[in-house]
Amino acid sequence: METVERLIRSTQQLLWERGYVGTSPKAIQAAADAGQGSMYHHFTGKAELAKAAIERSATELSAAAEEQLSGPGTAVERIARYLQRDREVLKGCRIGRLTADPDVMADPALRAPVEVTFRRIRERLAEILAEGKQTGEFPATLDPVATAATVAAVLQGGYVLARAANDDEPFDQAVQGMVQLLQGVAL
Amino acid sequence: METVERLIRSTQQLLWERGYVGTSPKAIQAAADAGQGSMYHHFTGKAELAKAAIERSATELSAAAEEQLSGPGTAVERIARYLQRDREVLKGCRIGRLTADPDVMADPALRAPVEVTFRRIRERLAEILAEGKQTGEFPATLDPVATAATVAAVLQGGYVLARAANDDEPFDQAVQGMVQLLQGVAL
Repeated sequence: METVERLIRSTQQLLWERGYVGTSPKAIQAAADAGQGSMYHHFTGKAELAKAAIERSATELSAAAEEQLSGPGTAVERIARYLQRDREVLKGCRIGRLTADPDVMADPALRAPVEVTFRRIRERLAEILAEGKQTGEFPATLDPVATAATVAAVLQGGYVLARAANDDEPFDQAVQGMVQLLQGVAL
Repeated sequence: METVERLIRSTQQLLWERGYVGTSPKAIQAAADAGQGSMYHHFTGKAELAKAAIERSATELSAAAEEQLSGPGTAVERIARYLQRDREVLKGCRIGRLTADPDVMADPALRAPVEVTFRRIRERLAEILAEGKQTGEFPATLDPVATAATVAAVLQGGYVLARAANDDEPFDQAVQGMVQLLQGVAL
């Protein structure tokens, strides 16, 4: 694997496990098996490399979401598949956890891919929910934009509850409860 | 204010803003206007002080939740009041954000108050939802434990979405969507 690629993947992994504040250039170099000179040859510093790593994670997560959301079935079925797909729950969300990182939130270049990822997923969910209204699956009173935010929030909050409990169970329950509510309001 | 109290409150504030990894003993001492000797006279170190600060935040948050949840009204009304009360959304949840802190999660003494806080709030919400079933507000098919996890997750995930967007709006939408879903399944 090329050095640039190793640097990006190592940074993705370290950001997931340690966060931005907890990830040092030295740790990245060690994990990527790259020298300091090599890292600064390819990137101006930790911030630029982190930006590349966050953008890569964002692209990967969006693609994974689209796999479930673009599949066959009703709106509830597609959203249920998205919520219930296999996840490394206790590791948390690679993108969502960055919102707890003050240095990521304070840097517009680092926050941008985080913002875009969540905006896109909410827009995509709202699209599917609006389709469900059009096909008569949901009542006319359902608010696709608000409900989409709720679905996205359940996932992110489920990670928080699971990590707090050091157990997948609250995540599974939160997702289960969400699917049941969507089934409950479906006509 | 006593030194111990100043140390605890300063640590609460720094953990909220900077997280555990990003909070140094020096920063705590500066914020509390306390000397290094004074801090180590009262606490064995950052971990013990952080434990006291997290426990304090947990107690304050549980009390704030109980204020809304124990009020009058139907189950949906009480939960809506809890979800919709005034919050410093963009600062995130003082307790929830700690789940992104690897050092907090790795230390059982620091994770314990985080775990207990979220377990209690889920239990309390499940109690109120079960009451709503008994009074005929909700259908017999509603799962109080799963739905309680969903409600707690929406709040935590709402913070994540809002911080990502640097805007309260996705939080407000997620909460709004949750209240509408509960109203939608109510009989």
